[in-house]
Amino acid sequence: MSCKEESVKLTGTVADSLRALPLFQSVGEGELALFTHAARRVEHPKGKVLFIHGEEAFHFYVVVKGWVKLFRETLDGAQAVIDVLTQGHIVGETAVFEGGQYGFSAECVEPVELIMLPTTLLKSAIEGNQRIALNMLGSMSAHRKHQNREIEHLNLQNAPQRIGCFLLRLCPDNPPTNSITLTLPYDKTLIAARLGMKPETFSRALAKLKAETAIEIQGPNVIIHDLQGLVKYTCNYCSSEFPCKEE
Amino acid sequence: MSCKEESVKLTGTVADSLRALPLFQSVGEGELALFTHAARRVEHPKGKVLFIHGEEAFHFYVVVKGWVKLFRETLDGAQAVIDVLTQGHIVGETAVFEGGQYGFSAECVEPVELIMLPTTLLKSAIEGNQRIALNMLGSMSAHRKHQNREIEHLNLQNAPQRIGCFLLRLCPDNPPTNSITLTLPYDKTLIAARLGMKPETFSRALAKLKAETAIEIQGPNVIIHDLQGLVKYTCNYCSSEFPCKEE
Repeated sequence: MSCKEESVKLTGTVADSLRALPLFQSVGEGELALFTHAARRVEHPKGKVLFIHGEEAFHFYVVVKGWVKLFRETLDGAQAVIDVLTQGHIVGETAVFEGGQYGFSAECVEPVELIMLPTTLLKSAIEGNQRIALNMLGSMSAHRKHQNREIEHLNLQNAPQRIGCFLLRLCPDNPPTNSITLTLPYDKTLIAARLGMKPETFSRALAKLKAETAIEIQGPNVIIHDLQGLVKYTCNYCSSEFPCKEE
Repeated sequence: MSCKEESVKLTGTVADSLRALPLFQSVGEGELALFTHAARRVEHPKGKVLFIHGEEAFHFYVVVKGWVKLFRETLDGAQAVIDVLTQGHIVGETAVFEGGQYGFSAECVEPVELIMLPTTLLKSAIEGNQRIALNMLGSMSAHRKHQNREIEHLNLQNAPQRIGCFLLRLCPDNPPTNSITLTLPYDKTLIAARLGMKPETFSRALAKLKAETAIEIQGPNVIIHDLQGLVKYTCNYCSSEFPCKEE
């Protein structure tokens, strides 16, 4: 799932949106203008495939609104969901380090607004601009920590705990009370896939989590009646504490 | 597990060893000399803890010989093995992007030879030398792909397939025959932990893999009698093909 720290609010013009990204922090106006001029705002319906694993990568994307699923398919036809990203996340930019090919596929899971940018421009900026290279290193490093945590959870947490963790990441950092209502960001089938669970495993795990921690599901809403109870149930089996600042 | 592509043979002087690392490719002699002069060769026995998660990171390490385990501990006391690295791998360098603290712990799993280097030097080199920043980006990107693959496997492969994948990565890229004998790089308990399995799960999965693919275990040696059979059993449930070039 997305890291809280990486989420960035994008409003206003394309230039405003790009400026708000960690990738362009402290980057000069001239360099930023190259990206702004080359940028195109695009909108896509649910189901639109942005690119396919192995394709030549002409563009990368900034998500302005909606959710984009990153995935790979096995020879056997199964789909592994690598990530599901939303506003403020960049998609496809790592192709510049991977021989100019996308390392996974990307699909819009609902109507999506994006800023589309040429990868050639990013490649030359990284090679010629130390600030952009350093910003890119910072975000790659944050992503690495995020993946380490994910591998840790897949190794050590059971399925109900992984769902608990997904819910806790949707909570504000300093919830005012011990009871809180959340809205799921996308449908349960995709949440199951994102957490690496088959739908039937997800259903059983969710039932167990409800029984153990007294959460309630009402359509797309989740009511956590005892936040501290959920934290105890989930975060004792993790190497960081709630609220999860580390990744 | 380590990617084949990242493995680097380190022989000769400290300067030779550093020069062989992807981090120092195409880096000028003057810059490299700063690292060579600051480097110290160290040897540690099995069980030596190099550093602890959260500690201030004064040093990073290049593994010259032996295996080093990277891990994190949950609040509950369980240990998640993040990686097990050997010759040519760098350990602890990502602390320079993480507020100068180690993001995990590291322990020698056998007698180990290392080159120890100051993180302050790496930090200033990355900030001041575009080549080193780009090399670092390249290796972070390779690592990201490696982690994506690992998450994919944890999500989609069963335990016997994950052991099969571990064995296939120990094979040469173009094995001369369909039968091959391998030596396990470290003990089975650590392999189990590295693959995110409890010892009893690992034993059951290994028994199943033996039954399904006719491999044989003799102490630290594994005899694969039908390599293509093992490839079919394992790699059909992965998004890349044997030999695994992609990560």
